[in-house]
Amino acid sequence: MKLAVGIDIGGTNIVFGFLDQKGNILYEESLKTKYFCTPDTLVDTLSKKIQAQLDENKDWELVGIGIGAPNGNYFKGTIEHAPNLDWKGIVPLVDLFKKYFDQPIILTNDANAAAIGEMLFGVAKNESDFILVTLGTGLGSGFVSGGQLIYGHDGFAGELGHTIVEVNGRKCGCGRRGCLETYASATGLVRTAQEWIPEDPYSILNRYNSTEISSRVVAEAANEGDQLAQNIFEFTAEKLALGLANAVAITSPSMIVLYGGVSQAGDLLMTPLKKHFENYLQNIFQNKIRLEFSGLEEGNVAVLGAGALVWKSLN
Amino acid sequence: MKLAVGIDIGGTNIVFGFLDQKGNILYEESLKTKYFCTPDTLVDTLSKKIQAQLDENKDWELVGIGIGAPNGNYFKGTIEHAPNLDWKGIVPLVDLFKKYFDQPIILTNDANAAAIGEMLFGVAKNESDFILVTLGTGLGSGFVSGGQLIYGHDGFAGELGHTIVEVNGRKCGCGRRGCLETYASATGLVRTAQEWIPEDPYSILNRYNSTEISSRVVAEAANEGDQLAQNIFEFTAEKLALGLANAVAITSPSMIVLYGGVSQAGDLLMTPLKKHFENYLQNIFQNKIRLEFSGLEEGNVAVLGAGALVWKSLN
Repeated sequence: MKLAVGIDIGGTNIVFGFLDQKGNILYEESLKTKYFCTPDTLVDTLSKKIQAQLDENKDWELVGIGIGAPNGNYFKGTIEHAPNLDWKGIVPLVDLFKKYFDQPIILTNDANAAAIGEMLFGVAKNESDFILVTLGTGLGSGFVSGGQLIYGHDGFAGELGHTIVEVNGRKCGCGRRGCLETYASATGLVRTAQEWIPEDPYSILNRYNSTEISSRVVAEAANEGDQLAQNIFEFTAEKLALGLANAVAITSPSMIVLYGGVSQAGDLLMTPLKKHFENYLQNIFQNKIRLEFSGLEEGNVAVLGAGALVWKSLN
Repeated sequence: MKLAVGIDIGGTNIVFGFLDQKGNILYEESLKTKYFCTPDTLVDTLSKKIQAQLDENKDWELVGIGIGAPNGNYFKGTIEHAPNLDWKGIVPLVDLFKKYFDQPIILTNDANAAAIGEMLFGVAKNESDFILVTLGTGLGSGFVSGGQLIYGHDGFAGELGHTIVEVNGRKCGCGRRGCLETYASATGLVRTAQEWIPEDPYSILNRYNSTEISSRVVAEAANEGDQLAQNIFEFTAEKLALGLANAVAITSPSMIVLYGGVSQAGDLLMTPLKKHFENYLQNIFQNKIRLEFSGLEEGNVAVLGAGALVWKSLN
């Protein structure tokens, strides 16, 4: 059985899986990013785990490895200056994997990979112009235009999370201020909550220590009717809406697909998002663009996308 | 001799010209936009003028008509809700021209057309990922990614001028607030000047009536050493830099080409623009992207681009 391996490297978790051409995942495993101080130790560990599966399942044939990584450079096969990873500088990840495997190894931005996953297996199956946005530790994005991923001249296109939505705004991991992901991501939402909770003694969020606050905890409070928690989602949604509306002005997609931790809040995010998004859109774009959550299982999107890189390249 | 007609429809002027496949313009004529209250009168006048040239030059063979227009829709051949034109609603310009000509008629956003002009005849000849920005009455833009124009699902991509750079900022012709073009365009620069001049009695710009202020007048004052005029360019450049840096995060171009009235200010604009642009860029994009003025003659770019639409479609 021909299988691709998809590897998703995130700020919190590294997930790898074996998938067939239809997007069925036959094996998946998750590792904590923080345990790998150097890329070499990660590549060594992953390669051994992949090989162990191949040894165990004699009918599995590896056709290639796809990797989705923050600041992943499609053209060079490198991860460069990723703000949410501890590995600094330029990491030649594809070259490191080539020491272990002869099959094709393809790397791109983690969100670009997720976009390809949505194109091959998800809600964007029939779309040729859409944006995929991941609301995880950071805010990642993949832009598809005319059926092709926008890679840019150097492979670094699709950094919507690092568009500036507020000049002199919040400090970002990238070294600048006011980037969209400092507001609209799991981390951004938690920052909003940590700033606002001390000012509102009536919020049930005061039950938690500052370090216990997560987008899930805020969502639960909002669902219990907590006004502050609802305001936090409203604020997050408005910032996200501004970033999305500005992106629409540039690439005019028919659809925007959201996935990642924050998107699990469902209508708490989507209802204010749709309202602010339409308000921020120029009239020529209003009431035209579908905002949807990924229909793929949370956690699978990135691995499916990373594996889809392989299947797309083979077709 | 095979010739294409390029028509550029701007908020102030409508220019049409005959050009050969190498971009040589054999005839060009300019009309004032405000004299055409309806699109029908414009199409009638232009068609007669084009036919008159063909009658006069018996060896000219018309191969097609390309049209660049604000809010031009490539897929439908329409101009839709253009904020800087008096014609409201949806104008089926290609259909109107088809009553007069049997040759192919192609319409797109005026800045998209200019981008194709730069690709075929200008400074972007060898670039596959670049942005063209026109700083005229408004701010237009055309995005080329992987050698292809980004049209978007509906033909309306490339509206960088209507990305919001300041929430609740200046009122824009599009009905919203804070659009980039309310700051970074000839009109935007004049608004800044008109706001700031009354507050600075020492500026030589006080010699002019409010209605006499233009980007040229402000440039002249800046060149004479007027601090306020220089500050106006600095402010305009900073806003433009923010809009460009955000666009770079999305499409990662190797080059940004500037043309249009304000770009005639040369270093007055370019020097602060380069400084603020690098400041606003994420580190992965810094010192990589060339900012250049169009090398094509001012006024010709749009007509060349509109004509280039025809030559590109025939090749």
